[in-house]
Parts: sequence; C-alpha cells; structure tokens
Amino acid sequence: MIVIDGLQYSNWNRSIFEQLRQGGVTMVHATIVYHEQIRETLMRIAEWNRHFEQHGDLIMPIKSAEDIRVAKRLGKVGIMFGAQNCSPIEDDIGMVEVMRELNLMIMQLTYNNQSLLACGCYEAEDSGVTRFGRQAIKEMNRVGMVVDMSHSGERSTLEAIEISERPIVISHANPLSFHEAKRNKSDKVLKALGESGGLLGFSLYPFHLKNGPDCSLDDFCDMVASTADLMGIDRIGIGTDLCQEQPLSVLEWMRNGRWSKEMDYGEGSKSNADWPRPLSWFRDSRDFPNITNGLLARGFSPEDVAKVMGMNWLNFLDDGLKPG
Amino acid sequence: MIVIDGLQYSNWNRSIFEQLRQGGVTMVHATIVYHEQIRETLMRIAEWNRHFEQHGDLIMPIKSAEDIRVAKRLGKVGIMFGAQNCSPIEDDIGMVEVMRELNLMIMQLTYNNQSLLACGCYEAEDSGVTRFGRQAIKEMNRVGMVVDMSHSGERSTLEAIEISERPIVISHANPLSFHEAKRNKSDKVLKALGESGGLLGFSLYPFHLKNGPDCSLDDFCDMVASTADLMGIDRIGIGTDLCQEQPLSVLEWMRNGRWSKEMDYGEGSKSNADWPRPLSWFRDSRDFPNITNGLLARGFSPEDVAKVMGMNWLNFLDDGLKPG
Repeated sequence: MIVIDGLQYSNWNRSIFEQLRQGGVTMVHATIVYHEQIRETLMRIAEWNRHFEQHGDLIMPIKSAEDIRVAKRLGKVGIMFGAQNCSPIEDDIGMVEVMRELNLMIMQLTYNNQSLLACGCYEAEDSGVTRFGRQAIKEMNRVGMVVDMSHSGERSTLEAIEISERPIVISHANPLSFHEAKRNKSDKVLKALGESGGLLGFSLYPFHLKNGPDCSLDDFCDMVASTADLMGIDRIGIGTDLCQEQPLSVLEWMRNGRWSKEMDYGEGSKSNADWPRPLSWFRDSRDFPNITNGLLARGFSPEDVAKVMGMNWLNFLDDGLKPG
Repeated sequence: MIVIDGLQYSNWNRSIFEQLRQGGVTMVHATIVYHEQIRETLMRIAEWNRHFEQHGDLIMPIKSAEDIRVAKRLGKVGIMFGAQNCSPIEDDIGMVEVMRELNLMIMQLTYNNQSLLACGCYEAEDSGVTRFGRQAIKEMNRVGMVVDMSHSGERSTLEAIEISERPIVISHANPLSFHEAKRNKSDKVLKALGESGGLLGFSLYPFHLKNGPDCSLDDFCDMVASTADLMGIDRIGIGTDLCQEQPLSVLEWMRNGRWSKEMDYGEGSKSNADWPRPLSWFRDSRDFPNITNGLLARGFSPEDVAKVMGMNWLNFLDDGLKPG
C-alpha cells in the first residue's frame, strides 16, 4: 500500500526517517519553511541535500509524482518539499518557478496572518486573494506548484478554489463540524474543495481534534466517514501535521516568526503554551498502521482505505505536479 | 555540425537569439552573473525563465549534456548557465549543489580579483586555492559543476587543475605566447590543462588577440593550430567572450562590481575605457561560419574543425556535467 502523509514538520534526523519507513510511509510532504525568505529557504534546501547525501539509503527527494512510485519500489521514504507560508517567493513572481525548480512542490498562500497573497485564518477580516495572489496562483498553476490553503481564511480559501485553474489542497486540517477551531474548515469550504477536484488531508494535531489529545481513534474514523459523505471518498487523505522532536522554540517560531514583539500563542494559550500531548494511537510515524486498521474496523473497504491512506494524494499529485 | 560557444555575455533578446541560430550555434554557455550574490542570481535565473517562456521556439535550457543533442535535433539554441565569479555561492558550500539544481553548470573560482576560493589574474600576488576553495572544488566535482579558471591567476589555476578530481576548463582565453595580456595563459598552464583532460576555449574578445580588433582570421587560425600542437586537438574549443549590445555601464559593472570606489579599467585604460571595436570577421554570432571556414582554409581536416567548433566541448561536458 502507498501511504502518503500530507504534512509533517519534524526535527528531521535518521531515527525519524527510520520511523517513517517502519510506519510504511511512502512519501511525506515535509514543510521546509514557515517564515523563511529566499536566502533562508535555500539554506533549508541545502540542509535537506545533506540529509539526502547522508541518508540516501532511507530517503529520496520527490521531483515528480512518478518519484513517489520509485520510492515505493525502492523501499525508500520520498520527501516532498513544501512551504507553509509564501515567504520563499518574497515579493517576486519569478521566484515561483525558481522555487519549483528547487522542488518546492506545494506552498500555502498564507500562514494564519495576512500575507502578500491572501488572508490567514487568524485575521479579524478576510478581504480575499490579493492582486499579487491572483498572479501567484496563475504562475503556480503554470509551473505545477500546488496551492495549499490549510492556514487561510474562509473567503481567501473559497476565492483560491475559484481562481485556481487546477484543484488545490487543504493539506492538514479537519472539518469545523468535528471540532471548533480556527484552523478547521466549514462544510461550505470542504464541499467547494471536493467539487473542484481538490483534496483535504486530515490532521492528527490534537488542537484540530475533538477532545484534543484524548480524541479516540473511533471518533477520528467517524470524522473520516462523514467527510467522505460530504466530499467524496476520492477527495480525502491524511496530513498528520506531526511535529516530532521539535523544541518549544520552533513552535514559537511557527507562531511568531519575526512579526510579533508580544508572544502569540496561536492555537494554545499562555497557560497552555507548549506542544500538545500526542495521541495515544498516533505517537509518531510508526503508528500509521493504527489509522489503516481503524478505518478498516470502521467498515471502509480495503480499496477505500488505500485511497485515504495514499492513493488519493498520489492521484492528485499525478496531475498537480505536472507543469501546465 | 554541433557548434558550441564556450562563453558569451550578451544583452540577451530575441534578435540575439536569432543571430545565434543563424550562425548555426547549437549551444552557448551564457554568463548569467558576475558579482551577483544569491538573491540576485535567482533574479537572473527568473529573467532567463521568462526568456525560455517567451522565446521557447528559439532557445531551450541545458539541464544535461544530452540536452545539447536535443537542442541540435530540435533546431534550437541551447542555453547553459554559468557564473564568472563565485559570488552565487557567497560563503556557503551548500549553495554549490543548490545552484547546480538551478542548472548553473559552470563557475569561475575568481573574476580578476582574489575571491573566497582562489586568486584572480589581476592581483599582485597569487597565494593559490584557499581552504574554502578546496572544499568548493570537491563539491563542484561531486555535483557535476565545471570549474572554470579563465580569470584566475597562474598559481591558482595550476593548483585547481591539480586539486580537481575532474578536468577543468579555461572557457575563454588565449595563449600568452599569441598575445601578452593578463587574461591570457602561459604554455605551462595550457600544457597542464591539456594533460589533465581539460579544455581551452579560444577568445575572440579583441583585448585577448594579437593586434586587437585588427587581428586577422589567419592569425587567429595560426594560434589555434599552434595551440593544437601544444595541448592536443581534442583539448581546444571556442569561447568567444562575445558581449553583444551591452552598454558601457555593464562593462563597468564587470570590472568594478561593488568593490571599487575608483574606476578600474580592467583590460582597457582611462583613454580606452569603452568596449573594443569588434573584429571585422566576427561581428556577432552570425559569423561563426567564418571561423569554420578559416580553420578549413588553414588546413584543418573537417573532422578536426568539427572538434574545435563544438565536439570537444560536447565530449568534455558529457563527463563534466554528470553528478560524480
């Protein structure tokens, strides 16, 4: 079975790569940057190049959807680069293609805040996709870089679905109907996403789940089932949002970048500022089989489980990564 | 016949691309940067991406030596990116691979001055390849980025030949024995270059030629013949150093970058500060057949002419661009 994790931002090292392989993960969309601009993004890529050099027996870079199948065949974990904010293109439309040449395959238009391209889900008011945003979506469509609206506001997300000539993704979030959180998505967004041929990756980040770290596997699988009813069984996948072995300072970087002098606690709070406690049934990438088994137990057919666990992502990327 | 120009820095536009095609040029090594650092280099690449988008009927990017044959087959002019200084890697060894991923295939270790990697041919004293330089050569060898010592000092060049595990090039210069100029190379360097499997591209920049702009085609072809005797017929090619339609400001940028408050006149002088007058028999890329015909008239066999005009470069790049 091809297993694809639609997003992780772990503190990458050999033991984490080994866990991915042990969990049967064929490919992971790895966030390489949050607020890093061009020069810093290139440093992150250079760090990944060292990982590929040193751990080439375990991992390989994903330079096309076909490489996902190659990774499966070789028994390696494919690493697909993604950005959680649009800072790697700074203010320069030409950087979309340059970053795509460096195998940045997927980029969020926003990370919680207003960006140059669109509005994040934490702003008081969402005025939609900007002028630069429209150009950037067009260029991302042209070069085959996937638009990701996981951290965007409702209006911006609906507009991006409309503007983009290719289906987009919400790589890591859950339905608002399952759990009330700024990062989760309304049925209206999910329906529009599904109808446009887009994809939702279900998050296993406790802040996005009913009962937080105590969310049961059964509840998670019920959510998958009801979302399949809403969006269609072909329009859903996994995007764990696993941030393994990251120190608190990284969480603070994700939440505050360089934009705030006061501490912003994001989905947490002053009294709950740290990383959430992990789920008992998904502690790290080795627990992917628990999701598979949970879905089978919930009554999904093996074929549908294979779709949710990876084939839907693979089919999406087969089209999504091709230059237009 | 495959015709390869081992270096140009023209003010690229559609009419210059058309001239290249009219002159039968299969591929040109295009300098994309002199003193530009990382962020600026990415802007230059983005500008080239626009050229590829707008003039895809005429030109194509060279991403491997095989692409040179593809260009020939398609009747397009292949564009191979190169840097005349090591500023695109700044102080970061990781940028060698990142730039190579962006198809920067060839890089000079120095441009006239001392660099972080080696010494240029205009410094009073050449202390050889630096500590960073040794690491950079090793990394360039690993990723398949060609070392170019055209603007380097004698000692640095000899050391680079020695240190590099792969043959290197002097993409655009002439023998010192033909014309006394800081940029031209001693027989000692040329012999070492030839014996190591390297390549010399003959320059048609008047400052590198006997009698300058009045150098005759016969004299040029005599120089090719005597260099073939010195280095071997397989170790020589063309590297015109054509800088077409460039304003004086670009010549000043090449010579002064950001390093000098006083005007440096490079190969010129205060009273001769501008671009040199072009050769009557090589005004632009349309005149490549004049070189071909000159070499045939000089008595080179058609097979040897084909080597000098392109096959030697192609054979060199077949090995040189392969990741190690």
